[in-house]
Amino acid sequence: MNHTQHYTLCFSCPDRVGIVARVAGFFAELGGWILRSSQHAEEDDNRFFMRVEVRADSVDCGLAELRRRFATIADECEMDWRISDSAVRKRVVILVSRQKHCLYDLLERWESGELDIEIPCVISNHDDARGLVEWHGIPYHHVPMGGDDKAEAWAEIERLFLESGGETMVLARFMQILPPALCERFAGRIINIHHSFLPSFVGASPYRQAWTRGVKQVGATCHYVTAELDQGPIIDQDVVRVGHGDSVGDLVRYGKDVEKAVLARGLRDHLEDRVLVNGRRTVVL
Amino acid sequence: MNHTQHYTLCFSCPDRVGIVARVAGFFAELGGWILRSSQHAEEDDNRFFMRVEVRADSVDCGLAELRRRFATIADECEMDWRISDSAVRKRVVILVSRQKHCLYDLLERWESGELDIEIPCVISNHDDARGLVEWHGIPYHHVPMGGDDKAEAWAEIERLFLESGGETMVLARFMQILPPALCERFAGRIINIHHSFLPSFVGASPYRQAWTRGVKQVGATCHYVTAELDQGPIIDQDVVRVGHGDSVGDLVRYGKDVEKAVLARGLRDHLEDRVLVNGRRTVVL
Amino acid sequence: MNHTQHYTLCFSCPDRVGIVARVAGFFAELGGWILRSSQHAEEDDNRFFMRVEVRADSVDCGLAELRRRFATIADECEMDWRISDSAVRKRVVILVSRQKHCLYDLLERWESGELDIEIPCVISNHDDARGLVEWHGIPYHHVPMGGDDKAEAWAEIERLFLESGGETMVLARFMQILPPALCERFAGRIINIHHSFLPSFVGASPYRQAWTRGVKQVGATCHYVTAELDQGPIIDQDVVRVGHGDSVGDLVRYGKDVEKAVLARGLRDHLEDRVLVNGRRTVVL
Amino acid sequence: MNHTQHYTLCFSCPDRVGIVARVAGFFAELGGWILRSSQHAEEDDNRFFMRVEVRADSVDCGLAELRRRFATIADECEMDWRISDSAVRKRVVILVSRQKHCLYDLLERWESGELDIEIPCVISNHDDARGLVEWHGIPYHHVPMGGDDKAEAWAEIERLFLESGGETMVLARFMQILPPALCERFAGRIINIHHSFLPSFVGASPYRQAWTRGVKQVGATCHYVTAELDQGPIIDQDVVRVGHGDSVGDLVRYGKDVEKAVLARGLRDHLEDRVLVNGRRTVVL
Repeated sequence: MNHTQHYTLCFSCPDRVGIVARVAGFFAELGGWILRSSQHAEEDDNRFFMRVEVRADSVDCGLAELRRRFATIADECEMDWRISDSAVRKRVVILVSRQKHCLYDLLERWESGELDIEIPCVISNHDDARGLVEWHGIPYHHVPMGGDDKAEAWAEIERLFLESGGETMVLARFMQILPPALCERFAGRIINIHHSFLPSFVGASPYRQAWTRGVKQVGATCHYVTAELDQGPIIDQDVVRVGHGDSVGDLVRYGKDVEKAVLARGLRDHLEDRVLVNGRRTVVL
Repeated sequence: MNHTQHYTLCFSCPDRVGIVARVAGFFAELGGWILRSSQHAEEDDNRFFMRVEVRADSVDCGLAELRRRFATIADECEMDWRISDSAVRKRVVILVSRQKHCLYDLLERWESGELDIEIPCVISNHDDARGLVEWHGIPYHHVPMGGDDKAEAWAEIERLFLESGGETMVLARFMQILPPALCERFAGRIINIHHSFLPSFVGASPYRQAWTRGVKQVGATCHYVTAELDQGPIIDQDVVRVGHGDSVGDLVRYGKDVEKAVLARGLRDHLEDRVLVNGRRTVVL
Repeated sequence: MNHTQHYTLCFSCPDRVGIVARVAGFFAELGGWILRSSQHAEEDDNRFFMRVEVRADSVDCGLAELRRRFATIADECEMDWRISDSAVRKRVVILVSRQKHCLYDLLERWESGELDIEIPCVISNHDDARGLVEWHGIPYHHVPMGGDDKAEAWAEIERLFLESGGETMVLARFMQILPPALCERFAGRIINIHHSFLPSFVGASPYRQAWTRGVKQVGATCHYVTAELDQGPIIDQDVVRVGHGDSVGDLVRYGKDVEKAVLARGLRDHLEDRVLVNGRRTVVL
Repeated sequence: MNHTQHYTLCFSCPDRVGIVARVAGFFAELGGWILRSSQHAEEDDNRFFMRVEVRADSVDCGLAELRRRFATIADECEMDWRISDSAVRKRVVILVSRQKHCLYDLLERWESGELDIEIPCVISNHDDARGLVEWHGIPYHHVPMGGDDKAEAWAEIERLFLESGGETMVLARFMQILPPALCERFAGRIINIHHSFLPSFVGASPYRQAWTRGVKQVGATCHYVTAELDQGPIIDQDVVRVGHGDSVGDLVRYGKDVEKAVLARGLRDHLEDRVLVNGRRTVVL
């Protein structure tokens, strides 16, 4: 991430001649100093994706005006687009169950300033992590989900998320299946870390599944949550080598390191507006 | 691999107190200098696995006598066991279709002495690789498999394999599904390289499947062939990182490097009698 | 790690015929159920290394008696040896400077029970981490090291380490060079995580050195501390891919994940008595 | 690589506002369909790097005219630049010593069409590989280098390279140190694969050096050759895990796989005009 204040434009649109020229020309006219720019053309469905970081102090207008002016090009090119300001911290709500390794990891990154975000609250179906979270000065909400009817709990979680101004919801090993309606309402805003190298070992106990199948590497996958379990677009994934001598418990332990690293990388890509979804695939610019 | 001539014992048996002491004591009495020894206990089904390399010149008897003497312990402990002599080259028959990268790779390892084996022949359903193989002084058999009834072709392949004294059959990207009866007849002796990180993307066009799913790593798996397609015990597997900018063709290209390395490692483990099968898992000692 | 209570024997000695038989025979006579055993022969200097885990409840005597009886074999074979009891928690003192990612990581592993150790105290040359450490119920000692003469500070650290009954000292990104005498006094007991793939980029600012050299992977190395800076025997190391677009800050960030994972793996190997030092090399059984 | 015929522009120049707009605008005016574009700004020395692939059939002029027209922008922006045509095969001369694994690997990639290049000849200081190379229909030159005075041999190699119209020289495990003058004459055109993870283990016997130091991973580095031994800009590198049980010979064997893959990737990046050198660093677009 660039530490100079910058605006980040990202968009996708039908591919045709001249898009880069239009966008680059637009910024050049404003005196915009481009810090970073990347693009991708998906040939199969003729779609174009682009992301541009431009120094805020090089542009002769504010964010609102920048958006207003860019809208003309965006309309002409039929873009899905957004422009964000690096000076505005994103608001990330973390959901967690009993396992706390991803939570510790995110808290350290937040505490050290590596993750330059607001964490308005942490939500959990257990009360275990309250002390740690509150010690960090972050509000903690315990929403029990023990019973058969979880609808009320989910409604409460949604209310807490909205009330806290949450933009992104991170399931940092939150071992509960989200209701489809919630997934759809916040499409592209809920990030999960699944403890397997998807599409292998969907669902429960993936490390035990991996052990039983005798694979020689285990992994983790960071993906957007969709209504279909563990089928959302993959942002990042990685693996680690294991052997016949490793028990299920050893796989769990090795996997924790991969989970933490992959979730952190995927979340960061998301927060830096690098991830554009294209059906079941992601473009990470 | 140790280059001193050695005998390799490997076995599995029900676990109980004293097995290592029996085996180590047996060799110590013969004056056997142990070069390498490794073992594994599978707690779930209480089975013990062991592999020992002993210097041939330290043992005061020949291989036949060694086997005869060891049989007593083996019987008592209900072992599945074998003893091999590193001075006897294993006979490996290679099957290949149109793609030749694994073939080139194996030929180089054989030519340089890295793989210290006999290759009595190469068999293919195409005639493309004849020149390269024969230039290396290895007989080449073209067995067309175009028609609907492949039974005759498979019978011919089996005949060629047996006639050439083949012990191990390597499917070095041989894009044909083996008849179940053949798989069973040569259980634990047929090695395949599948071009995906199993259990993901079984069957045809795994790289296209991987691209469509948008995974961020692609891999390859070396496994024993069983009657169930791509479900055999895994010997080795590895992956390589890919991104949204990589086409299916790029995945194929990256994958080739992984396929070559994984097949070579898995084959070598097999040839050095390191691999013991336990149901759907392998123990690689 | 096996969760059944067990005794772990590890030793090295001059290699000769019959060592395994002696050791395995010794345990068999006691009715010892071997959970795990591994060995290694270093041909270059004819030295043999072995590690055995035996179930505590299968041996018909206590630890003291076990040691007494084993001493006979150990003497005959000229072994460097030790036997530990998995039920006795090792005492690990953590030293840390300003960067807290390794500290957070170790605390989480301790809190979740993954690392089954005692942490009698954390020592730092800064006061930053006090709150976090004390929140975990662990004593925190601030030993400033700002001046030119650090001898007094080091004496204080040594005193605190000994007073707390510390067995292992972990430099979890403790950015101070240890006095040679201290390194020698606690040889094989001080573990450091260096933020480069040694032997590349010894000393200060390894990520900047790596960036300047334009390497395409950065890494981290867990090693025993010796009097020679960053030259001690390596326990574990790993790398992560980087590219031209990554700044020094990005390298630092990627590196953190590798540091945490490598330190945790190396420390665990050490605590499970898997690591035997042989000159500048380690044998990790 | 894109299989549609395309022109590839790559350049570096002092960074300033408007470069992308100028370049993209230039192509848009010609109707140029951009297949791929990537750029990088090196903040430390304020230099900008860019690479653009444009469909040949979308541009309304030929290559010569394209170059002529672009020269105006290039001059204004003080660019180091080149435009190449994907339809023109690059000419790559391979140098090899006794070890043939990289040679086999490159020949397979060439034979299968993966590497779409001309190989006008292979040069070696041994005669071992003649048969294999000539079987592929490629001329082979044996230039002995046994004596003390190698100047004549190097002059002969340079003559053969130039005479064959060679553009890129690949040292595919050519175990001879190039004279500085040659390195300078063909700066950015000679690619070497060094069998270590540079900057570790420069010079001779890197695997033995690695073994002696007890590292836990070994690697390979593909780099441009400069007058200073093993110090040239790195194009790509990778590693593979090793352990205490691996002999120097095992390290050599594992390393071969990394060498082949890294050389192939680095060479391909070079041939696709992706690599721009910036002092001791490379930008791989």
